[in-house]
Amino acid sequence: MTRDEEAHAEKMRRIQAARATMMETKTEEKGLLIVHTGKGKGKSSAAMGMVVRAIGHGMKVGVVQFIKGAMHTGEKAVFDAFPEQVEFKPMGEGFTWDTQDRARDIAVTRTAWEEVKRMIADPGYHMVLADELNIALRYDYMPLDEVLAVFAARPPMKHVIVTGRNAPDALIDAADLVTEMTQVKHPFRSGVKAQAGIEF
Amino acid sequence: MTRDEEAHAEKMRRIQAARATMMETKTEEKGLLIVHTGKGKGKSSAAMGMVVRAIGHGMKVGVVQFIKGAMHTGEKAVFDAFPEQVEFKPMGEGFTWDTQDRARDIAVTRTAWEEVKRMIADPGYHMVLADELNIALRYDYMPLDEVLAVFAARPPMKHVIVTGRNAPDALIDAADLVTEMTQVKHPFRSGVKAQAGIEF
Repeated sequence: MTRDEEAHAEKMRRIQAARATMMETKTEEKGLLIVHTGKGKGKSSAAMGMVVRAIGHGMKVGVVQFIKGAMHTGEKAVFDAFPEQVEFKPMGEGFTWDTQDRARDIAVTRTAWEEVKRMIADPGYHMVLADELNIALRYDYMPLDEVLAVFAARPPMKHVIVTGRNAPDALIDAADLVTEMTQVKHPFRSGVKAQAGIEF
Repeated sequence: MTRDEEAHAEKMRRIQAARATMMETKTEEKGLLIVHTGKGKGKSSAAMGMVVRAIGHGMKVGVVQFIKGAMHTGEKAVFDAFPEQVEFKPMGEGFTWDTQDRARDIAVTRTAWEEVKRMIADPGYHMVLADELNIALRYDYMPLDEVLAVFAARPPMKHVIVTGRNAPDALIDAADLVTEMTQVKHPFRSGVKAQAGIEF
């Protein structure tokens, strides 16, 4: 090895040792409450990526979409290939600015929430995704206290993922893992329309 | 309707109208160069979510993992269900701090990059994911100029996704869609270990 290569190997050995020491302290397994929020793209996509991993590990996953039910046709075709492992509930009846009926939106949200509650209580499910629940909370379609109580009382090994911009502070406080997706650049700004595989 | 409900419906009509006007200007379709960067989780997961959507729309996708090849067993099981639509190349031979051999890391990166180049040039692929390529760029395992030149010369409808923290500025400048994943809270901090379905 050259001196540069030796220096690189030594640096990597230090990183490896530091990481091993760090990982030794991480011994707990628990169901995580995960929140993806922020104005950037990728909140629902990252949740879908976790769903895919969970399926690959033989887990059973429940997916409830609170808002953009009609649009996400892409995932559905893949989930349909694993009917024993994914229960997919596209409950949301389109974006709220299209329905323009608050009472109906609240009723639809309630129906979707009952599905989430059922999946959280059912020991058959390892992971539950409440997609765009934050939007429903933002519009006060669901009482936040009720949502937090159900999450807090969930079985110890159950993973729950909540997506949507404007996650309430109390939900962030309660969560184990929170990522904020920040928009740096968006193609709509340069006149590109929503495309299959990217937006839906 | 009550007055509150009418006010809500009116507000939603305004949002709907504004959105329709905005969307009318978005008419272009093009292959996007997409970058997921930042220190938070979800960069690769969000890319995997896009891959799943693309598969659901009947597209063919190439996935090349530059770094954490051995760990992501979860997605592989799902991709294996769509052998005609996904070509998955877990080229990275583990994290760089485990290999401790710069010359070997550069050779492995080059092999992975040749796969990306082939998939970008091949009109059979609609989307190519270069997972954790940013890490390889960060360690100077690949010349950035070469990467940017291949991306710039790609076929017009080809989507390319690059993930990994520390995306180079020149890559961000060249990209159409950039999201930064910001870590708000991470369960490692409270002693929870990496778990199936979440980290791998």
